[in-house]
Amino acid sequence: MTGRFIAVDWGTSRRRLFLVDDGMAVASESDDRGASTLSRDDYQQDVAAIRARHGDLPMLLAGMVGADIGWRKVPYVEAPASLAHLARSLLWIDDRTSIVPGIATADDVMRGEEVQLLGAAAAGLVPADALLCQPGTHCKWATLSQGAISGFTTAMTGELFALLSSKGLLARQLTGEVTIGAAFLDGVAEGARRDLAASLFSVRSRGLLGLLDDGDAASFASGILIGADVAARIDRAATVHVVSDAKLGQLYSAAIEALGGTAHLVDSEAAFVAGASKIWDMAE
Amino acid sequence: MTGRFIAVDWGTSRRRLFLVDDGMAVASESDDRGASTLSRDDYQQDVAAIRARHGDLPMLLAGMVGADIGWRKVPYVEAPASLAHLARSLLWIDDRTSIVPGIATADDVMRGEEVQLLGAAAAGLVPADALLCQPGTHCKWATLSQGAISGFTTAMTGELFALLSSKGLLARQLTGEVTIGAAFLDGVAEGARRDLAASLFSVRSRGLLGLLDDGDAASFASGILIGADVAARIDRAATVHVVSDAKLGQLYSAAIEALGGTAHLVDSEAAFVAGASKIWDMAE
Repeated sequence: MTGRFIAVDWGTSRRRLFLVDDGMAVASESDDRGASTLSRDDYQQDVAAIRARHGDLPMLLAGMVGADIGWRKVPYVEAPASLAHLARSLLWIDDRTSIVPGIATADDVMRGEEVQLLGAAAAGLVPADALLCQPGTHCKWATLSQGAISGFTTAMTGELFALLSSKGLLARQLTGEVTIGAAFLDGVAEGARRDLAASLFSVRSRGLLGLLDDGDAASFASGILIGADVAARIDRAATVHVVSDAKLGQLYSAAIEALGGTAHLVDSEAAFVAGASKIWDMAE
Repeated sequence: MTGRFIAVDWGTSRRRLFLVDDGMAVASESDDRGASTLSRDDYQQDVAAIRARHGDLPMLLAGMVGADIGWRKVPYVEAPASLAHLARSLLWIDDRTSIVPGIATADDVMRGEEVQLLGAAAAGLVPADALLCQPGTHCKWATLSQGAISGFTTAMTGELFALLSSKGLLARQLTGEVTIGAAFLDGVAEGARRDLAASLFSVRSRGLLGLLDDGDAASFASGILIGADVAARIDRAATVHVVSDAKLGQLYSAAIEALGGTAHLVDSEAAFVAGASKIWDMAE
């Protein structure tokens, strides 16, 4: 492992950065300066500000920073793709600032998640052949084969929940906290019927008929969305490695177990730091 | 058939009224004074204004006017429910102004659609035993048994399209007109996989990968939503009577036929006038 560098997971709405020293995160920060909030001209100054705070170090940037809405568009690497493929295809802004490419299949794309997913395998947090799930606004389900991403599917599960919570018929009901309990698990069973538009209406009709308290509606609706996502992706007896923060990871894990699978939770920040370090080692 | 009365289909966002004479609509109007735009105190004045325009006649009001957001909350009639059940359970505001109740099953509700659906059967536009589909913001799929509504399912298909068009990842793409062509039918086939959150993300990924023109994205996304709705509801060889305006009815009919069913289009205004007239006859 080589010395210090700064790794940034630069997403659409948020960014997280890690000061990495010999493969370990020794400092981190998170803010809302995501790619959707920045113009192309902001990045040079943001990168300089990060170096002013954390040291005048090389930087490895991943995520939407490399999209058309980001700093510089980096072409996708085609699946199957490993960390070595990513390291060979970095886009160098200058000799110490580089952007990690995303990965594309014939019909789907990812940008940012690849560092976490491949990093989880590189760090030995998941097997080299495994089904990985990374929950979020756009949930990624990736198949790892010999440590490379061989295929994946994106479901806009988190975004649908956010849209339904923000306006329309269900918004008034979806104000409570989502917790793992009877309402969430009822939702998972309902969602597993894979009839999403009807199941979501049942949030309203059950409320009108006195079958669902408003305080449970967010948990029930979240269960429907996550249950439909999981049921479309796993057979019974599947093992899924959930690469996530704890809160969302626990919801997905509960749904996976409720539908007959086995879930292993993997810390997404540790996976990102591992993936970024490995890319950095190979790129030098 | 008795003489003149005014029938109003008073929905959430819009209302349509018909001046009915011996079972025939002799005048109609449509405006945006739906229940969501009115307060409880507005109705008396609105009803007086309608009578001032169309004659000092008895009025039969159906739809969200009888909901908790409407003029007066009318309890649901339990399925199985016929026009006779509705006529017996009218809520009379005064001796010439009445509201039609909605229908509830153990887990779903409708308010307004019942007049059209039962009216279609009463007018002989559909058989007494049939599967009916009424597309819209909240699409209703009802089973008619001996001319009564014996069960139904609501899917928030239209609302999901409206939400996705208004904000979030896909909004920028979903600006074109929805037409029945290759993109719509591709969407129907995709939607029939019943993996809605993933299929909807494919609108974005196909766009990024150059597989879908932005001009076709609205048709593709509409096809996904309608295809998922239809695939959850019909077996191959099913016959569906689509009670709708022409535009939305043709989209649903195309999806039903593409998925192996047979669709018959029924004019929703004719069905409403028939249903309202029959209720009025029985109520007098």
